[in-house]
Amino acid sequence: MSKTNNTAGIKYDVTGIGNAIVDVLSFVDEAYLTRNELAKGSMQLVDEERSRHLYSQMGQATECSGGSVANSLAGLASLGARTAFIGKVKQDQLGSIFTHDMHTVGVHFSSKAATDGPATANCLVCVTPDAQRTMATFIGACSNVSEIDIDVSIIEQSAVLYIEGYLWDTEHAKAAIRKGMKAARAAGRKVAFTLSDTFCVDRHRDEFLEMIKNDIDILFANESEAKSLFQTENFDEAANTLRGMCSIVAITRSEKGSVVLASDGAHDAPAQTVHRVIDTTGAGDLYASGFLFGYTRGWDMGSCAMLGNCCAAEIIQQLGARSLRPLRELVA
Amino acid sequence: MSKTNNTAGIKYDVTGIGNAIVDVLSFVDEAYLTRNELAKGSMQLVDEERSRHLYSQMGQATECSGGSVANSLAGLASLGARTAFIGKVKQDQLGSIFTHDMHTVGVHFSSKAATDGPATANCLVCVTPDAQRTMATFIGACSNVSEIDIDVSIIEQSAVLYIEGYLWDTEHAKAAIRKGMKAARAAGRKVAFTLSDTFCVDRHRDEFLEMIKNDIDILFANESEAKSLFQTENFDEAANTLRGMCSIVAITRSEKGSVVLASDGAHDAPAQTVHRVIDTTGAGDLYASGFLFGYTRGWDMGSCAMLGNCCAAEIIQQLGARSLRPLRELVA
Repeated sequence: MSKTNNTAGIKYDVTGIGNAIVDVLSFVDEAYLTRNELAKGSMQLVDEERSRHLYSQMGQATECSGGSVANSLAGLASLGARTAFIGKVKQDQLGSIFTHDMHTVGVHFSSKAATDGPATANCLVCVTPDAQRTMATFIGACSNVSEIDIDVSIIEQSAVLYIEGYLWDTEHAKAAIRKGMKAARAAGRKVAFTLSDTFCVDRHRDEFLEMIKNDIDILFANESEAKSLFQTENFDEAANTLRGMCSIVAITRSEKGSVVLASDGAHDAPAQTVHRVIDTTGAGDLYASGFLFGYTRGWDMGSCAMLGNCCAAEIIQQLGARSLRPLRELVA
Repeated sequence: MSKTNNTAGIKYDVTGIGNAIVDVLSFVDEAYLTRNELAKGSMQLVDEERSRHLYSQMGQATECSGGSVANSLAGLASLGARTAFIGKVKQDQLGSIFTHDMHTVGVHFSSKAATDGPATANCLVCVTPDAQRTMATFIGACSNVSEIDIDVSIIEQSAVLYIEGYLWDTEHAKAAIRKGMKAARAAGRKVAFTLSDTFCVDRHRDEFLEMIKNDIDILFANESEAKSLFQTENFDEAANTLRGMCSIVAITRSEKGSVVLASDGAHDAPAQTVHRVIDTTGAGDLYASGFLFGYTRGWDMGSCAMLGNCCAAEIIQQLGARSLRPLRELVA
């Protein structure tokens, strides 16, 4: 049983710092990925010109709010949790869409929108016939998130601060994350972190390992990311090493479900039965929603993982990473 | 067997003039419609302020290109037809999305985007649990379509000119439509028209009747629109009167399929079996895609109606009015 230690002055269950992105989802064939040198299942950062080029070659698309931590918070809010988001949009049409989709589900989001500089970020989400998603992100306005965007009072009032590895990019974004973690730590709150992506782990391995050892209470990863962190092909080896570094490690394993490594042992949770997988976008993000919902309510690790699996199963049966159906009924 | 008379100099099967709109789709409950005085199944024009208010009360939304004739052309192109679109967006993010979605499916769309004035139009599409859609449209940049946007050479090279009743609104839009119809007529092309919506018929009954008698070769309507045109509750009466006014009348009847009234008699086409209706948005638009695809290939009326029914059945099993799957395989 894991509980947050200090519940006095808690206004939010989870506050997240992450990229504020609108997803542009389209079905593509395998040849599209090959032709454009996109590694399946990964997220690649692209500049505006490459983003335009890739978009021009995509078919009919559907736009839907995204962003990893933002998706997790929207999922948490839909489950009934109190959440807040810190991230950067521009004052433009995609920025309004992103903001609406956070507010409508009940996520507190008051970060100031940029009035100049790059446009609101977009992520081209290429969904192949096997339902896997491959992403090309034009990071736009997100890249300007910095220390001044970190509202310390919100973090002090949140049981958990949740941060995405994707955001660990520019120096001012790193400074923003450090400021957030410091505020959470000082207020006796928990810090959760997701490794986000194997390429992301590749770029920042040493810094991520340092953070996991010193600053992170709850780590989210999938199998590939965990293995990439230690540059090993042996999952058990990676899992065991992580176990010694961080009090809670939640690892998603696709059709094998998920496993949580905590002080009281390993907790396996089998995957939910899924009728038809449409699009795996948001599976990891929504797993974190379910897990953190249970965690902030003091559930045992197995139940946290189980709700995580349920939320992931729900979202892969929809297009996009935001559920058009409320998730609250999954809690029962 | 209905064929277009003159096939010399034909570059496009169908050119359409219509509203260039991005749809904002969300699931709502019946209470949302009642509270906001939205008549189920209808389309209401709203100003920017009311649009914002309605949007703020909507849940998580998905954005997808729309516009009635634009949807029909995208469907036609996806079936394999050569099409062109005339309509007005602004140079903004939603305008880029609309333009991309036309170009990617192969619709010729070169109307100049506005650099100032109102934003690209959006339509709040409220989908109720019975899969019916109710729409509130902020007409934005569309309202500025005028005679100068009508590229006569494109219309002269199109077997069919297709126009939506929704566009019959401002005086300069009406002038644009009249210019288009005149060009089509002078080049010996066919003119198709959709009544669009019962409220639309209510506003413009006399002008629509005048046009049907004098300028329209192919009329699309659903049962309610046909009845509204003659202010009768008797469908057969409405259908018979229409029959005497226009050479081809194609009427959609939801689960009863569709009926085509032509010089060689009435052709009933039963509705396709549908596994699960998600959202009826675009059903009428995609019926027109299928029908006009067959028509421009010289198919008999029954086959035209059958492909129309197939396309409608396909789109109501998806969210939004643009198919994320190519429609070409339905032709077989």
